[in-house]
Amino acid sequence: MIHSLTLSDVLSEHARSRPKVTAVVDGSLRLTYSELDARVSRLAGALAARGVGEGERVLWLGQNSHAVLELLLACSRLGALFCPANWRQSTDELRFVVEDLSPRVVVWERFEAAAPLATDAWVDDHAALVEEGRPSDLPPVDDGAPVLALYTAAFEGRPNAAMLSSAALLAHSMSLLVVRQMEPDFTFLNNGPLFHVGTMMFCLATLQIGGTNVFTPSFDAEEVCRLVDAEKVTQAFLFGQMIDAVAAANAERKYDLSSLRFVSHSAEWDEMTTPDDSPWCRSKMGGYGQTEVGGMLTFLGLAPGAAGFAGRPSPLVQVRILAPDGSEVAQGEVGEICARGKTLFSGYFARPELNALKSRYGWHHTGDLGRREQDGTITFIGPKLRMIKSGNENVYPAEVERALRSHPAVADAAVIGVPDERWHQAVKAVVALKGEASVEELVEHVRGQLAAYKRPRHVDFVESIPKKGFAPDYDALDLAHGGGNYPGA
Amino acid sequence: MIHSLTLSDVLSEHARSRPKVTAVVDGSLRLTYSELDARVSRLAGALAARGVGEGERVLWLGQNSHAVLELLLACSRLGALFCPANWRQSTDELRFVVEDLSPRVVVWERFEAAAPLATDAWVDDHAALVEEGRPSDLPPVDDGAPVLALYTAAFEGRPNAAMLSSAALLAHSMSLLVVRQMEPDFTFLNNGPLFHVGTMMFCLATLQIGGTNVFTPSFDAEEVCRLVDAEKVTQAFLFGQMIDAVAAANAERKYDLSSLRFVSHSAEWDEMTTPDDSPWCRSKMGGYGQTEVGGMLTFLGLAPGAAGFAGRPSPLVQVRILAPDGSEVAQGEVGEICARGKTLFSGYFARPELNALKSRYGWHHTGDLGRREQDGTITFIGPKLRMIKSGNENVYPAEVERALRSHPAVADAAVIGVPDERWHQAVKAVVALKGEASVEELVEHVRGQLAAYKRPRHVDFVESIPKKGFAPDYDALDLAHGGGNYPGA
Repeated sequence: MIHSLTLSDVLSEHARSRPKVTAVVDGSLRLTYSELDARVSRLAGALAARGVGEGERVLWLGQNSHAVLELLLACSRLGALFCPANWRQSTDELRFVVEDLSPRVVVWERFEAAAPLATDAWVDDHAALVEEGRPSDLPPVDDGAPVLALYTAAFEGRPNAAMLSSAALLAHSMSLLVVRQMEPDFTFLNNGPLFHVGTMMFCLATLQIGGTNVFTPSFDAEEVCRLVDAEKVTQAFLFGQMIDAVAAANAERKYDLSSLRFVSHSAEWDEMTTPDDSPWCRSKMGGYGQTEVGGMLTFLGLAPGAAGFAGRPSPLVQVRILAPDGSEVAQGEVGEICARGKTLFSGYFARPELNALKSRYGWHHTGDLGRREQDGTITFIGPKLRMIKSGNENVYPAEVERALRSHPAVADAAVIGVPDERWHQAVKAVVALKGEASVEELVEHVRGQLAAYKRPRHVDFVESIPKKGFAPDYDALDLAHGGGNYPGA
Repeated sequence: MIHSLTLSDVLSEHARSRPKVTAVVDGSLRLTYSELDARVSRLAGALAARGVGEGERVLWLGQNSHAVLELLLACSRLGALFCPANWRQSTDELRFVVEDLSPRVVVWERFEAAAPLATDAWVDDHAALVEEGRPSDLPPVDDGAPVLALYTAAFEGRPNAAMLSSAALLAHSMSLLVVRQMEPDFTFLNNGPLFHVGTMMFCLATLQIGGTNVFTPSFDAEEVCRLVDAEKVTQAFLFGQMIDAVAAANAERKYDLSSLRFVSHSAEWDEMTTPDDSPWCRSKMGGYGQTEVGGMLTFLGLAPGAAGFAGRPSPLVQVRILAPDGSEVAQGEVGEICARGKTLFSGYFARPELNALKSRYGWHHTGDLGRREQDGTITFIGPKLRMIKSGNENVYPAEVERALRSHPAVADAAVIGVPDERWHQAVKAVVALKGEASVEELVEHVRGQLAAYKRPRHVDFVESIPKKGFAPDYDALDLAHGGGNYPGA
């Protein structure tokens, strides 16, 4: 066990190395690392007494709370798997999660949609659970054991719980510590949902460097202002309109937000906050990622001035752009973004066939399309929802859609495959215009950017593209515009 | 293999992600990551053709060179173990290394002491080896396999080769990237010896972030100036008198050293260089470490304003201060510094009994004494060379020596155990004075700092303390001052 390090081991070290440092703030509750460690020991004892052992699942049904971090750490101590459920889901969606995960313990709170599902075995008071537990000697847990399960939004079919081990989570935290240049005085405001990797990854990196995690149930602009001011928050989970809302809530400068170190956004925002000059924010924030790689796979901050707009891979992963047969595509060609490395997930819970498919050829297949640019940096093209097979060539709709959308007259576009006698399938573009453009002009525009066989042979104009979530509704499009003959269908 | 990442995998990724970035500069040789990857593939082929496979050893006998990095990476590709030998050793010392490691291939260069040992099988031209090799398909290598062996200076007995895996080396690099806030434009000058972990750890962290490693055979102040200026070096391996020598070599400001980001040293040095404001250098540089933990175990930069002068542990390790029976000592008490975590070594090559001893109770025993201060930070006391047993209490000479040396009149001190009828052993101090102090005064001084049973019951004054390397020569001291009755002796 000399090389193993679990999330719980990190907490045990912090309890010794920084016993008096504030680990958690949640409403009136403030916990030092020493206190958090003691509570997690008791919580692990309480869960163990309820039958939670190695491989068992614990489900949290509630908004953001210190309970999420405590339950995760307790599960790490037990070798169990913790899942914070999406509290925005309907009762039916929650029923699916409860049945899919078959948790040994469900802890729930402030969660109306869950009420119809609750049984006597469900625990509705996290604090009481912590109180009732007695710490006990537990066998050591290997850091390769899955500890966190996050349901990922499926574009089609049922959602799947991506399982992440302590080893993967700690490796991912290291990559964030490097790129965001986080230091021990980092204070993170958990205002984004902890059932998504975007907030969770900063929560865990803050834990790992021994900083302070501040929890708030969900996003509230005024409350964000109050907490940033009171706790001297370094970073919060804020984007676009959320930033505007926070700036508006502080229009009268009631709160001091200068502890926030952030990317430039608006003149007003920049005046309230302090610029973050770490690679994470220095030019453009972010990169490419997904839950299955622990969060971020590539970082813009590792590729200043890059050609590819997703940047370069984290120092702990390898990326390959692969063709459907598992071979690496040439530089500049589009293929599926595949990955290996220390931050990768351990498969989906109870999905052996999907796991085998996603890890074929020894690489995790992200389901997203990308390209290596000439400088080696990576461009994310779009989700590989389906593939068109035209004259033995693979055509990915997302790539052609991207080319079409780059035309100034195109408001939106979707690409389908239609049966073709000679080519088996032919590419058809469904286009919503915002200006004037002929079919010939659009086809030439695509030809100028992509291989000739990828150009649309048919173009239909529509008022708007039907959507399913953020993506085009391909089933509706196929039905309305004659799609068919897809490979494997 | 989806979670595995070897040093060679990192290089393969860089060859794709940053093909045109300069990886290596050595004299007139300049290699991009793409070129380095191609050379390492050929080198691995050449080594494989000479029988180097999984677990086989490759020895480098030469000064600093790009060859060290290339051989290490080629061994990583093969699952072999690479050792850069200490080129300052005598022929007899080298003979021990060659016999101990029984390498399959020895590559040697500019190394007189090795000449009497050379056989026909030794390769004296690294460049020719790279040329002769043909890349071939190699089976994947697990990142837990040992890849680097570094002989550690033994205080007594024979030296031992500490083996580090890719997983440990990459984890350690991540900790350096975090604390030193290294970025992809980092350029490291390898002017310290690569057979020591101090230089090697920065070489590998620079590789991992995709920076540039500049090699120079050994330390030469003028050459350091020239290379820093020419290659815009970010950091070099410079301490104390080396810094003074470099500053003196540049007294006439012939070279521009402003790319060097460094800790404050002298007015002249600070004027030539740029301050490093990362945690690594912000206050005092360093921490506590040893080869067996991959380099650094604790960092001062993670504990600003700490009580303990070794700082706090790296984010990827756990530290425990243990008593000889494996129990954790109380806060404030001295015990052996023990560790677990991702950066730890995989034992010494061919030392099964020593490995069992060093990893007893599931913790790596560093052989060094330390203490947790009240704020949880760690103080390094000194090497646990031997222990005195007085009235069932353990007394570590290093701790008492430290207390004695803190007296203003004491120039140096060593502590031994002498036979005692009542206590089995009694503590005796051997002291070299630089001012005036009575025996009573010295004993009281120690009593003020340590438990009463640790105070010397006898004090002998001497002109100077005999040394063996940096440590007191305890055998000579025992002989001259009546030492004996040591536990286990």
